[in-house]
Amino acid sequence: MLLTLDQAPGKPLAAQIRAQLLALLERGTLRVGECLPSTRQLAEQLGVHRTTVAEAYQELWSLGWLELKPGSRARVRSRTGLAPARPDPAASGAFLRRARPDPAESVAFPWEYRMGGVAQGLVDRAARSAPAGDGVISFRSMTMDPRLIPAETFRGCLARVLRRRGAALLGYGAREGFRPLREYLAHRLAGYGIQAGPDEILLTHGSQQALDLVFRMLGPGRRIALENPSYEQVFLLLELAGQTPVPVPMGRDGLDLDALEAGWAREPPALLYTMPNFHNPTGISTSQIHRERLLALCERFGVPLLEDGFEEEMKYFGRVTLPIKSMDRRGGVIYCGTFSKVLLPGIRVGWLVAPQACIRTLAALRRVSELCPDQVLPAALHAFCESGHYDQHLSRMHRVFRARLRAALAALREFMPPGRVRWQEPVGGYLLWLELSGPADLDWEAHCAAHGVEVCAGSRFFLGPAPGARLRLSISTLDEAQLREGLRRLGQAIACAPGPEASR
Amino acid sequence: MLLTLDQAPGKPLAAQIRAQLLALLERGTLRVGECLPSTRQLAEQLGVHRTTVAEAYQELWSLGWLELKPGSRARVRSRTGLAPARPDPAASGAFLRRARPDPAESVAFPWEYRMGGVAQGLVDRAARSAPAGDGVISFRSMTMDPRLIPAETFRGCLARVLRRRGAALLGYGAREGFRPLREYLAHRLAGYGIQAGPDEILLTHGSQQALDLVFRMLGPGRRIALENPSYEQVFLLLELAGQTPVPVPMGRDGLDLDALEAGWAREPPALLYTMPNFHNPTGISTSQIHRERLLALCERFGVPLLEDGFEEEMKYFGRVTLPIKSMDRRGGVIYCGTFSKVLLPGIRVGWLVAPQACIRTLAALRRVSELCPDQVLPAALHAFCESGHYDQHLSRMHRVFRARLRAALAALREFMPPGRVRWQEPVGGYLLWLELSGPADLDWEAHCAAHGVEVCAGSRFFLGPAPGARLRLSISTLDEAQLREGLRRLGQAIACAPGPEASR
Repeated sequence: MLLTLDQAPGKPLAAQIRAQLLALLERGTLRVGECLPSTRQLAEQLGVHRTTVAEAYQELWSLGWLELKPGSRARVRSRTGLAPARPDPAASGAFLRRARPDPAESVAFPWEYRMGGVAQGLVDRAARSAPAGDGVISFRSMTMDPRLIPAETFRGCLARVLRRRGAALLGYGAREGFRPLREYLAHRLAGYGIQAGPDEILLTHGSQQALDLVFRMLGPGRRIALENPSYEQVFLLLELAGQTPVPVPMGRDGLDLDALEAGWAREPPALLYTMPNFHNPTGISTSQIHRERLLALCERFGVPLLEDGFEEEMKYFGRVTLPIKSMDRRGGVIYCGTFSKVLLPGIRVGWLVAPQACIRTLAALRRVSELCPDQVLPAALHAFCESGHYDQHLSRMHRVFRARLRAALAALREFMPPGRVRWQEPVGGYLLWLELSGPADLDWEAHCAAHGVEVCAGSRFFLGPAPGARLRLSISTLDEAQLREGLRRLGQAIACAPGPEASR
Repeated sequence: MLLTLDQAPGKPLAAQIRAQLLALLERGTLRVGECLPSTRQLAEQLGVHRTTVAEAYQELWSLGWLELKPGSRARVRSRTGLAPARPDPAASGAFLRRARPDPAESVAFPWEYRMGGVAQGLVDRAARSAPAGDGVISFRSMTMDPRLIPAETFRGCLARVLRRRGAALLGYGAREGFRPLREYLAHRLAGYGIQAGPDEILLTHGSQQALDLVFRMLGPGRRIALENPSYEQVFLLLELAGQTPVPVPMGRDGLDLDALEAGWAREPPALLYTMPNFHNPTGISTSQIHRERLLALCERFGVPLLEDGFEEEMKYFGRVTLPIKSMDRRGGVIYCGTFSKVLLPGIRVGWLVAPQACIRTLAALRRVSELCPDQVLPAALHAFCESGHYDQHLSRMHRVFRARLRAALAALREFMPPGRVRWQEPVGGYLLWLELSGPADLDWEAHCAAHGVEVCAGSRFFLGPAPGARLRLSISTLDEAQLREGLRRLGQAIACAPGPEASR
């Protein structure tokens, strides 16, 4: 066995011995069952101290290459190799050379048999949302327009809070989330008639996590009432939480409260999930009167209400209708909000407002599912809001989207084929909901895509069959020119689609 | 009805009318059932245009104060009041004055009847972890020492990436997480013998979320094998996911593989969760040989293995034992890692490594439960790592914790009452596990706290009764002097505790 050592300083001898033996072992020069020289022999041969050799042997033992027994010589053992390396340039930095790949051993593990049915279903559905092709105008995304993100200002705020608060923000924080931001939200929500102290607010990782936490809190096997149609991700969240959706039909002014009352008289659900503003997908905002009656029904049947105010601040046509939570005297309403839809999509900060007992439970749940929220981004957001940037940003958003929505409505009037499309004019938000007279079973998404415009088919948002052909258009990422061109194409697509007589 | 308008510019007349009417309505000067002047009358009285009055009425209608019917005069309606305001100074900015609180109506909603049993249990358990009192030395927290957080360097990286990539980082990113960081991790993991491309890596919100996603992927009702004792939060995660833990006993070198084999021959579980390095709570790191046999058993019984490498890089006593994932030729191992335990606790970035089919499913699940991860902090982390700061930080951590662990071991030898305490010397990580000869049913946490030192009782970590008195000590937040003083106090506490003869 030939080993040569480099006596230059900075090259530990034990590491050299280990590396050279490893090469011999990997190449198969040293075979399974073979004995190595004793530590004394090899130490003499190399002119090093015996403990140096022992250290090298020890490391090879810990890697599984050698058997070491007191009083016996080290012996090469049969070792499970490393997984085969693939031709990945990133792997070139590996400090150990790889065993040769053996294709016969690389049998794939059958993950598909291991995953729960829900998980598998999610993957199938995820595959449905392909990105838009070149030149296509897409009305699908509800993300806010990246051109409107106040990146520079936010960057300044981030730098400032890190300079001021440094390490304190990089450790674990309060489990309910960065307190100054909760205080700010308490103050701001008071402007919407919601009375809540910072201890009645939980910061979440976006509003999606907020909903997930509430559904998980209720435990599996519960019946959850919600608008039909509704936000498609909520159906998935309920599925994931093992809950049964109880769809409530909608009228022109929101949930059909007569149908709701009749259904609940038979069997009230464990919770009602509702979007009273700019409902997704229909864009409907309910009236004060509707909200009052809905809350009264919830209180009568003892049904807690989860109010999703995901675009509370996007009422850019000036009507002020207060959230249902503002009338909640009994603590039966959980309110959910977010910054993602109107300010910074990628800064995942949402919040829940609920009675303190409820917030404590939700915080405990979140602690289990992800330990704690980060503090850096909420702190930067707090600095951003406190300096008045949020209010400035909102008025800019209102200005921009008032113009966009007006342009979209004008284009609808101009381009939709007469008598074939109906819509309501929303008071804010990003959504338009078109009711078509064409057949519900046409693949509207493919049909429109063939005309260079992408939309969401209404059928995505219904539990059970859609009551007719519906399209959801989001104007969030498109400027006036894009909106006009997109709706021109959509008008053509609808005009050449089969008419109502084609309905089966 | 007396209204006075200020004709100064910048004070919209409709808003003035609305505000003054609102005050009359709130004060009760205008009563339910009363009719308001027609828009024409009031417009003439105030000398404004009729549409200005109509606008004010419209807004009061949308707030629920008025009934408006075409052809009739506006009438004050009975309106559900806002929830009562509490004396919260933060609420002073509210733009609407509050209705008077009516205590009779403020009946609390019975949330406790609505929450699932699991959620309620979590709150009870959360209450068990009170913060340490003044002057108490606590060995409880496994958070890394905030004094070691490289806050300044990280701040620089954050500022740099925001300057360079700006708005792109503030929008929604890839659903698998910031790609350059995944590429960096792929490269780094190759140094641990793990061959994975960036598409086989999912970034998560800390390793806790990573575990939660894997358990949720499997679906409820599954049996999950794990070490007994184990990380207490994992028991809660399993409970939350509706799964049954299958405890496997441990020996001095990790999972008792004979017991595991015998149990699995009867009924293999759906997954094995294991911590091969610095196992929590025992601090044990398993040998290469143990890892090989464990993987072989998993492959034989078709049991996927979830390897928690939460402190993979904290082997500061120099033994290199590769992760089990490095030997995974069949794709049956999911590996989980995190930056939180060794770098920045509050920057919640962990990761999962698994075959691509599995990562796709996990990404779809995460998309449902929280839409997408943020990109800003992973981008800053990437800049931090790429510039070599991570390696520098790790060698600093190794230096610091080598010294701390040596100090702790020396103090144990010095202060533990002879013959009453046994421990193994860990090769890294933060944990020491003491086996005491005293009674298992003593409240060790309270007993030690009375001596000014906080520990975790071993019973927290066992499913079922603990096999004897055990204490888990974490050295993560304490320097040498604190460790020495803390262990001196602990020695006293143990010395004056009832001896083994007191065991029942």
